[in-house]
Amino acid sequence: MNSIILQQPGKIVFGINSIDKLPEDELILTSRKILILIAEPVINLLQRTINDIQLSGKTVELIPYLFPGEPTFSQFDNLLAQSQRFNPDCVIGVGGGSVLDSAKLLAAITGNEQQYADVVGVGLLKKRMKRLICIPTTSGTGSEVSPIAILLNEKTEAKSGIVSPALLADAAYIDPALTVGLPSKFTAETGMDALCHCIEAYTNKFAHPVVDTYALKGIQLISENLLKACKNGNDLEARSALALASMYGGLCLGPVNTHGVHCLSYGLGGKFHISHGLANAVLLPAVLRFNLEASPKRHAQVAMAMGIVKGKEDTATALEGIKKIEELSRECGIPSSLTTLGISENDLPALADIAMQVTRLLRNNPRELTKEDAIGIYKTIL
Amino acid sequence: MNSIILQQPGKIVFGINSIDKLPEDELILTSRKILILIAEPVINLLQRTINDIQLSGKTVELIPYLFPGEPTFSQFDNLLAQSQRFNPDCVIGVGGGSVLDSAKLLAAITGNEQQYADVVGVGLLKKRMKRLICIPTTSGTGSEVSPIAILLNEKTEAKSGIVSPALLADAAYIDPALTVGLPSKFTAETGMDALCHCIEAYTNKFAHPVVDTYALKGIQLISENLLKACKNGNDLEARSALALASMYGGLCLGPVNTHGVHCLSYGLGGKFHISHGLANAVLLPAVLRFNLEASPKRHAQVAMAMGIVKGKEDTATALEGIKKIEELSRECGIPSSLTTLGISENDLPALADIAMQVTRLLRNNPRELTKEDAIGIYKTIL
Repeated sequence: MNSIILQQPGKIVFGINSIDKLPEDELILTSRKILILIAEPVINLLQRTINDIQLSGKTVELIPYLFPGEPTFSQFDNLLAQSQRFNPDCVIGVGGGSVLDSAKLLAAITGNEQQYADVVGVGLLKKRMKRLICIPTTSGTGSEVSPIAILLNEKTEAKSGIVSPALLADAAYIDPALTVGLPSKFTAETGMDALCHCIEAYTNKFAHPVVDTYALKGIQLISENLLKACKNGNDLEARSALALASMYGGLCLGPVNTHGVHCLSYGLGGKFHISHGLANAVLLPAVLRFNLEASPKRHAQVAMAMGIVKGKEDTATALEGIKKIEELSRECGIPSSLTTLGISENDLPALADIAMQVTRLLRNNPRELTKEDAIGIYKTIL
Repeated sequence: MNSIILQQPGKIVFGINSIDKLPEDELILTSRKILILIAEPVINLLQRTINDIQLSGKTVELIPYLFPGEPTFSQFDNLLAQSQRFNPDCVIGVGGGSVLDSAKLLAAITGNEQQYADVVGVGLLKKRMKRLICIPTTSGTGSEVSPIAILLNEKTEAKSGIVSPALLADAAYIDPALTVGLPSKFTAETGMDALCHCIEAYTNKFAHPVVDTYALKGIQLISENLLKACKNGNDLEARSALALASMYGGLCLGPVNTHGVHCLSYGLGGKFHISHGLANAVLLPAVLRFNLEASPKRHAQVAMAMGIVKGKEDTATALEGIKKIEELSRECGIPSSLTTLGISENDLPALADIAMQVTRLLRNNPRELTKEDAIGIYKTIL
């Protein structure tokens, strides 16, 4: 086994009602001013916890996160100005991936001599100035345990990834009860995003046994529970399994990360504002079909983690797994074609161009993937 | 899923030759004085790394660890006096469980107003004063990723556990190449200790799905690789698998921990100075046979992780698994009876008394375990 670096929040509190423990967290107890960046639909769910923190004498500034996806540079500038003005000791992010990513960057950049525009890329952000707690309210992003944050460069329409250990939260509170109210559509899309994290890590050119453990378990949990949670949002067992799978997916991101699926989806998000999970879900089967020949055995193991019985040949087993992913998507109400998302054939070269720029993920793909290949993949699901 | 707290070193570097990255670790780069507590047999293996650290201008104090097992209070006093005199910025432990535990406590207590005798127990140690890096050279203890350290109280002959997040290393470097020279006997005993960590966590009264993932994977890896590594110490693939399993076992210790096996083994170590892994290995099948009725399904799943095919009844499947553990022990040269270890029937009440005092683990056992039960279990393997 070659050498790999695993980094995660030093403290992860996982489970139903784990949020109740937040007010007594050492990070809170030793802070005076706390900034909470929170997705608007979940403010009610956190109200009691926020009250408890305020009652203990802390100054809390609540900023509702109002943007539809990851913040553009100028939207982030606004958030940053508010954070700089308040100058918190501790930043708490509560929400989906975009909220958590924004909170991570706010904690890192507020009071820092480094500016966010200077740290786009891998390893450029040197340190974080403020304490950071991440609380996911979707099961998909894994951002609560990853060292990655994504902004949208509105000029280039490209997503800009910032990767640094300084973006790892001090603590993550993963409370499946917070995801109960998530509508079926978003449950499905975020769940498929988590599935992508796990599958792209497991079939990655730089896959590693330590991360494989998380990936395979995540794939199994999503395969067994996503449809249940979509059908019945109150199914706490399914919600818990998805929250765990999402955390596992997130733990794959730092050391191994994603590959072609996320690459090809960047343009769908940046240029067409299609939600991140939905874009990945639509692309996943097509990219796996393209990649399959590079590692039939790994792709077959993905299928087996989804409950497919091992067949005589790995390729056949793997194809059954891809069909099962398509079936899961369909049952969860996710469309299977780009046309449904408003993409036409004329858009494909520009989308492929954007994908080719995401070199930090492109290099992870198990099979070489050129611009022509990308266009070819898009065409198979047009 | 109920709430659980996962804590581990913020940074784990895992893999062959990962030790080469140590000199450039931020923890080293930002330290001036570095104390290295190291098991004598591995000093040669680390010499180049130590030279590199010294050449970069750091002051290094090397203390060979010379005790046969966990340090007694007075032995630890000696180590502590040396550490206080040197007053390091960073403590590095290199060795098996006793060395790592000692290094963890040195880092915590050196310069601390709390004394070690005041912090025996759970959660009493409030903070650590020095940076801490753990480098295991056996695959068993899991101490490199756990918040636990054990001292031997020579007056009471009882092991004294100190449990606190302050004992979690800042970084763990887990390099399977460092275990290559470990003799077969110690490979077997430490490997069985790791197996106990995983099985006792999985069959624990407070088992949790998040930890189950580590436990089952660890059981599988040890079952598949322990004999290989015992037969051929140079089998780097088997060594890597065991190092990973040991890490997984260690990750079970903080949130869930062990149960009756470790409980009943405390006296064998404290009173009879039988090595920790050996004592656990001898006890494991007997305690599992006693516990089986409390959770046949869980015990069957342990068996299945060891490669036993699921039978019609969980109890039968579980018993096959216990037989497989006995077979693995035998093939690895581990004795199966207490008599072989120098224990006679007269010793059993005193051993059971010691076990009854380890309440922090006793409460984890899936089946109530009285003093009489303990004596009964010892008798089955006398």
